[in-house]
Amino acid sequence: MLLVLKFAGLCLCLGLCRGLQFNDVDEEAPSAAQTSKYGSLWPLPQEVNIAETSFKLSSSTFRIVDSKQSSAGPSCNILQNAYRKYFEYMFGVARKQEFGKNGRPGLSELTELQVWVTSVDSECDGYPSITSDESCDLSLNVSLCLLSRAMSQLILSPLSFQKNINATKIKDFPRFAHRGILLDTSRHYLPVKAILTTLETMAMNKYNVFHWHIVDDPSFPYLSRTFPNLSQKGAYHPYTHVYTPADVKMVIEFARLRGIRVIPEFDTPGHTQSWGKGQANLLTPCYSGSKPSGSFGPVNPILNTTYDFMTQFFKEISSVFPDAYVHLGGDEVDFTCWRSNPDIQKFMEDHGFGHDYSKLESFYIQRLLDIVTSTKKGYMIWQEVFDNGVKLKPDTVVHVWIGGGSNEELSKVTASGYTTILSAPWYLDYISYGQDWQKYYKVEPLNFNGTEQQKKLVIGGEACMWGEYVDATNLTPRLWPRASAVAERLWSHQNVTDINDAYSRLSAHRCRLVERGIPAEPLFSSYCPREYKAV
Amino acid sequence: MLLVLKFAGLCLCLGLCRGLQFNDVDEEAPSAAQTSKYGSLWPLPQEVNIAETSFKLSSSTFRIVDSKQSSAGPSCNILQNAYRKYFEYMFGVARKQEFGKNGRPGLSELTELQVWVTSVDSECDGYPSITSDESCDLSLNVSLCLLSRAMSQLILSPLSFQKNINATKIKDFPRFAHRGILLDTSRHYLPVKAILTTLETMAMNKYNVFHWHIVDDPSFPYLSRTFPNLSQKGAYHPYTHVYTPADVKMVIEFARLRGIRVIPEFDTPGHTQSWGKGQANLLTPCYSGSKPSGSFGPVNPILNTTYDFMTQFFKEISSVFPDAYVHLGGDEVDFTCWRSNPDIQKFMEDHGFGHDYSKLESFYIQRLLDIVTSTKKGYMIWQEVFDNGVKLKPDTVVHVWIGGGSNEELSKVTASGYTTILSAPWYLDYISYGQDWQKYYKVEPLNFNGTEQQKKLVIGGEACMWGEYVDATNLTPRLWPRASAVAERLWSHQNVTDINDAYSRLSAHRCRLVERGIPAEPLFSSYCPREYKAV
Repeated sequence: MLLVLKFAGLCLCLGLCRGLQFNDVDEEAPSAAQTSKYGSLWPLPQEVNIAETSFKLSSSTFRIVDSKQSSAGPSCNILQNAYRKYFEYMFGVARKQEFGKNGRPGLSELTELQVWVTSVDSECDGYPSITSDESCDLSLNVSLCLLSRAMSQLILSPLSFQKNINATKIKDFPRFAHRGILLDTSRHYLPVKAILTTLETMAMNKYNVFHWHIVDDPSFPYLSRTFPNLSQKGAYHPYTHVYTPADVKMVIEFARLRGIRVIPEFDTPGHTQSWGKGQANLLTPCYSGSKPSGSFGPVNPILNTTYDFMTQFFKEISSVFPDAYVHLGGDEVDFTCWRSNPDIQKFMEDHGFGHDYSKLESFYIQRLLDIVTSTKKGYMIWQEVFDNGVKLKPDTVVHVWIGGGSNEELSKVTASGYTTILSAPWYLDYISYGQDWQKYYKVEPLNFNGTEQQKKLVIGGEACMWGEYVDATNLTPRLWPRASAVAERLWSHQNVTDINDAYSRLSAHRCRLVERGIPAEPLFSSYCPREYKAV
Repeated sequence: MLLVLKFAGLCLCLGLCRGLQFNDVDEEAPSAAQTSKYGSLWPLPQEVNIAETSFKLSSSTFRIVDSKQSSAGPSCNILQNAYRKYFEYMFGVARKQEFGKNGRPGLSELTELQVWVTSVDSECDGYPSITSDESCDLSLNVSLCLLSRAMSQLILSPLSFQKNINATKIKDFPRFAHRGILLDTSRHYLPVKAILTTLETMAMNKYNVFHWHIVDDPSFPYLSRTFPNLSQKGAYHPYTHVYTPADVKMVIEFARLRGIRVIPEFDTPGHTQSWGKGQANLLTPCYSGSKPSGSFGPVNPILNTTYDFMTQFFKEISSVFPDAYVHLGGDEVDFTCWRSNPDIQKFMEDHGFGHDYSKLESFYIQRLLDIVTSTKKGYMIWQEVFDNGVKLKPDTVVHVWIGGGSNEELSKVTASGYTTILSAPWYLDYISYGQDWQKYYKVEPLNFNGTEQQKKLVIGGEACMWGEYVDATNLTPRLWPRASAVAERLWSHQNVTDINDAYSRLSAHRCRLVERGIPAEPLFSSYCPREYKAV
């Protein structure tokens, strides 16, 4: 018996077809949850049909092979890495012995998974992009099998050490193309290992964008080749709390192999206190009366040196980060310091800005956007930049983050013809008691006033984990499975809204994460067959 | 140069004198916090005096020895285990190489720590109790030392791999005798390792009571030798989700070596759904109209078999758990099922209880208390038992947990002459955004109306981590350092209330926990010299 996985484009990560999303967890349903007919599938595929008949699987005979018709084969790194990973997920690593592998009579064996990439361009060596085709079909046909007994009993038998897989048809593709997680490595430094663990778990939840909010006021951990003083002076520690070029490369490659884009954010002109430590004259000197107070405000927008610096800096960034987009921030600019500075005041007068400092902000951003455009990159910006009327490239992605009024904002942004992503309802750093995953799950991103055309401009969303109260000690259990709820909202069909069914699948999904070594926290009183052991 | 640690009683855990609470963390202050003159001491000792002069320490020469006058020596397990642990804390384990151990000229070396237990009964083989003397003095005298240069510079030098310790005098004892953490192993099963990690961290925070809320409605993980069906049927899984007698023994011994009492809670008559699965006729059958509905309510208080069972069960418990106290619960009894049951109704009539089911509850509890008293144990109970007017032994500990009105409750309980502990403000499972440790820290347990005599009856408090949303994946970062805030409130002097000083010390303390492998979450944007690496 063989199983064919058929991808329109390179699926980038075998897990994108979740016919393979079974494991021991499915065999023992968590006690508290009623079982979903979709088992532990998460996020739910667009179309799925699970028959009652099942096939046995044995690690000694099961093979994943490239279909003859496939446009990608043994030389495709992405694919071969995915084969190894999913084989391990399916059969575990060495510690898990396989018992009874001769199986029971009457159960057909599935011995081969054929992977068929149908697109001409297999993208094996490329990077994922907003236009990557993530659709795939899985069909496990039962017509060849003679089944002597009810297989479902075998599947549920807790004494069965044999893996089984049900006959299944899946037709799958994402509802939104941009499904991201924001991590903040400035408020707390996250060791690379914590980032890689997040990427690994993102892949298990079909996230495809890592929004790396890499620097901010508190620290500047990005080690710039062009301006090494930025991290030398601006990081929490110049050696132990920085991301070296090798670190950044590793993160990008680790993400690429999992079909995840890495979009770095270098937020300016606000949120830049740490930049000032290693780059003289970059920030605005604040005044107390007629004298500099010794403290600094946002990036100084009136000096040519500022733009020279940004030109060099973003030239580096454009070559270090392969993604077509960079996030330029532009949020929460505090005008107090600009107002206090006599040189700024004079500049405002000379340019006829009056006392409207948002015009000065726009002046700065406009020049920055031009600089970044010259590096051949597209950009994302936080919503304030749009709100302030800055002239944006048509392919700009406006990032909506302000809670209360985000529907109105989506209406406005899309009415102006810009693509947009939503984060406002998904600030996962805001914790509260109870099952708040439901709140995230119930969000409908297209629930705003607008034409069909406008709705199409919403290309996705991001769950944000800001770092004030989060570091490597609590990141993973705080992020998962709460971010899994957002993942399904962004992937699955709009009508997938049954909260009880979601509870059941998500409970099983979180136990699968735990089984794979990810400390994803529980939804409610319950247990996993194998509890998290470390620490 | 030598240092003498003098204990009134056996300190049970060397760490109880925190002159030894230094490590590399102190050498590099966290960026965000202003530094406290008490460094990273947590909880703050009752009296502490740190001089500017310091001594060097080297793992190759430093020794911890039993003072000649000490009543405890090499044969004292508790002490020897503590020596090893604190030596490791001080100098790290193998991975940390010691550089420059020949040190700098002019810095006196501290080569010996003499430990002097002054009490006649050293308690080396015994268990800690509510009357254990936890006081200790530490005096590191500087009069012998000639110091050629300012030592503080050396201490702060980030390039110094040498450990230094400041001349210090400490006189210490706890404000409250009962300082506990409640873990709930019923709503989620916690692997033994997670419990041991909690005990280890409790010792680092001078907690001395582990309140083991071991069973409850969702599951019964306690493996009873007398009634093995209780866990066989009532645990989430009869093998993987139970605490065997060996597990329980290990937890108790691990705790004992750290000066921590283990008080198990077997909560009845409510919160007992899981008991009913393995013990027929123990729970009250609920009725729907004139017929049993198939569901069950609280323990059935009208059957003699119930009391026979409890007698046998608590006989086992009294021998398994060495502590002088057992927690009997008695909270949140729902009368709905009792009301529905005709046999119960008749019993109520026969006993003249009318329709006051709290009288039936008291009837049950009264008999249970007698049973437990006959096992020579004292008991703790949740406040409802006191509120319902049950006759209690004079040494009963009433556990105040209901938020809003806890001050009034403390007044009433102590006015009645009972000892009491407070948990109402310290339900750490209720999470919220931000620095909620401050809320826990600001609680003043004796801020209720009552005489001096009444105040003395408040013997302490407990931080509770109920398990609805907590298992091994998120327990540790959710518990620490939030429970550290409670620890200082229960240990240190009433006037230790400076929140900024606390922030500084607690930030450093949490980095020390991280350094020791405990994933304690951050207070706010900041960093630790060595971030948490695992996962």
